[in-house]
Amino acid sequence: MLIDDDFFMSLAIDEAWKYQGLTYPNPAVGCTIVGENKELLAIEAHKCAGMPHAEVLALQSAYFKLTNDAKILDLVDSSEIHNYLLLHHNNCFKNISLYSTLEPCSHIGKTPSCASLICSLGIKEVFVGVRDANIVASDGASMMLENKVDVKYTTLQKRAKDLILPFERFNKDQFVFFKWAQRLNATTDTGVISSQSSRQKVHAMRDVCDLLIIGGNTVREDRPTLDARLVDGKAPDVLILSRGVEFDREIPLFSVPSREVYIEDSLKRIKNYKNIMIEGSFNMFELTKDIVDIYLCFLAPTMGGVSGFEDAKAGFEILYTNQEDKDIMLWMKREI
Amino acid sequence: MLIDDDFFMSLAIDEAWKYQGLTYPNPAVGCTIVGENKELLAIEAHKCAGMPHAEVLALQSAYFKLTNDAKILDLVDSSEIHNYLLLHHNNCFKNISLYSTLEPCSHIGKTPSCASLICSLGIKEVFVGVRDANIVASDGASMMLENKVDVKYTTLQKRAKDLILPFERFNKDQFVFFKWAQRLNATTDTGVISSQSSRQKVHAMRDVCDLLIIGGNTVREDRPTLDARLVDGKAPDVLILSRGVEFDREIPLFSVPSREVYIEDSLKRIKNYKNIMIEGSFNMFELTKDIVDIYLCFLAPTMGGVSGFEDAKAGFEILYTNQEDKDIMLWMKREI
Repeated sequence: MLIDDDFFMSLAIDEAWKYQGLTYPNPAVGCTIVGENKELLAIEAHKCAGMPHAEVLALQSAYFKLTNDAKILDLVDSSEIHNYLLLHHNNCFKNISLYSTLEPCSHIGKTPSCASLICSLGIKEVFVGVRDANIVASDGASMMLENKVDVKYTTLQKRAKDLILPFERFNKDQFVFFKWAQRLNATTDTGVISSQSSRQKVHAMRDVCDLLIIGGNTVREDRPTLDARLVDGKAPDVLILSRGVEFDREIPLFSVPSREVYIEDSLKRIKNYKNIMIEGSFNMFELTKDIVDIYLCFLAPTMGGVSGFEDAKAGFEILYTNQEDKDIMLWMKREI
Repeated sequence: MLIDDDFFMSLAIDEAWKYQGLTYPNPAVGCTIVGENKELLAIEAHKCAGMPHAEVLALQSAYFKLTNDAKILDLVDSSEIHNYLLLHHNNCFKNISLYSTLEPCSHIGKTPSCASLICSLGIKEVFVGVRDANIVASDGASMMLENKVDVKYTTLQKRAKDLILPFERFNKDQFVFFKWAQRLNATTDTGVISSQSSRQKVHAMRDVCDLLIIGGNTVREDRPTLDARLVDGKAPDVLILSRGVEFDREIPLFSVPSREVYIEDSLKRIKNYKNIMIEGSFNMFELTKDIVDIYLCFLAPTMGGVSGFEDAKAGFEILYTNQEDKDIMLWMKREI
């Protein structure tokens, strides 16, 4: 296997996908750092808003590998890591190469700018996945070029672009993703489908969603809570897509604090929201197909149940897949 | 992400899985080499019998990275690579670490022994996935220990063991795997399901299988050839599992040269074969469940067709998954 620039960039892309859906309102970003002998020093990703950017985490790990100074590993705050690196780097980064799936940011937001950090540390070579279209954060590339950083663009443009598709969408107006869990025989009914780990991941996604859309039948049959309790997170507002408005108000989702629940027969409500998850099966899949940007399938390696997607007609492009504990996660774009 | 011994071993395991089903009668083996600063120098796998072992390919790549002597890259024959390394290594491997999913072999088969090569090159540290139970090839670990190589065992025992399950089976008596292609909605009918790349992979597997088992209905409906033409490979013998023996002899599979075709209503025939692939859908899945060691599903990210696995009941453990062009490959062990 070729261990080259594409390989290092693809490690960064894969790592970033693991946190897709969790970084809102920030993009999913990954970063790999290799040393002067192309030794792999760090592979990191941005995990959630308020946490350090991927580049900062990668520089933190790489600094430890290069200097053996373990004090930096105690720092969790991005500003503290920035400051520590600026004070102690002693030109250790001089010959490294940094691979970032997204152009390093040039603005000071929740954390200081990554591009300025890269310049201050004297890093000579930065590979960029895609340019950042976000007007506030962008043009880190120009800043780096002015500071004599050799900025190169990856050949894995398509994969780097796929990775920030959700960010581009919610940055522009809103991002809508359809999540479902199914067995290998396409069923979605009869008991729990996904493993505990997959369900935790869904709760972590709900925690950063502002609206969750679900079908009326699912509410009546499953009597769900639709919160983020498995990760101690906040519960999103809920839109129950239903012609009838009568629901047993003892169904737990109605009693979750600090949440609005709407029961409506249209999707007009979504205009007020930015990061929207739809959970459902075949019926919701059909009803929402015109508004969905990306599909996320949790596929359990089991066969059972009664029905689900057996009659569906669709074609997808797989953007990323990985094993999540016992299940498979499939991030997909719909083609047909 | 932690870049540690487990990470390097898992790179080797993942690389080896890419050639699972293709290495018969050899095991699928992967090898990672890292330099003295833990820089990643090579990730390689054994690709098919007669080709160099994973360790030899990894040492070849690593030698080039360490010395910049490109002449070694022209060599394809394992003995030539061995000899070149022995003549020119000049102690460049002294501080490397080698991670092999399987204990390096100690016997001279189609290629010279990897364990003796490791000893001759002065490698100080070797991480082993699992011990080799093959009596002829095994005890490379003892040879290395006698030569003061620091032999360590990975903590990823379970994954390394899963990887050589097919080898252990055909080494003992025979290995039987069930391969099917399905859409995301579990259908297996109505036209081509898998991408060209997936079909090539199946042909490459047929090339090393000695028996292919298929159901009578599939033969009548699909009128298949069941050869390995997409990879210019040899066609395996075919067992058509069928109560009725009347088939249109114009069906292409009957005209493939150098192949036996059996039409039988039992699986007794398999006792004469070592590496056996079953291709089919739900019916064959049910009929063969008692003899199958591993399942391989090519999952296309499409929904359509009419029927397939919708009524199946089963539970699997996923051993390995990866994207194969547009499809997903799932290697699984059946649990229920």
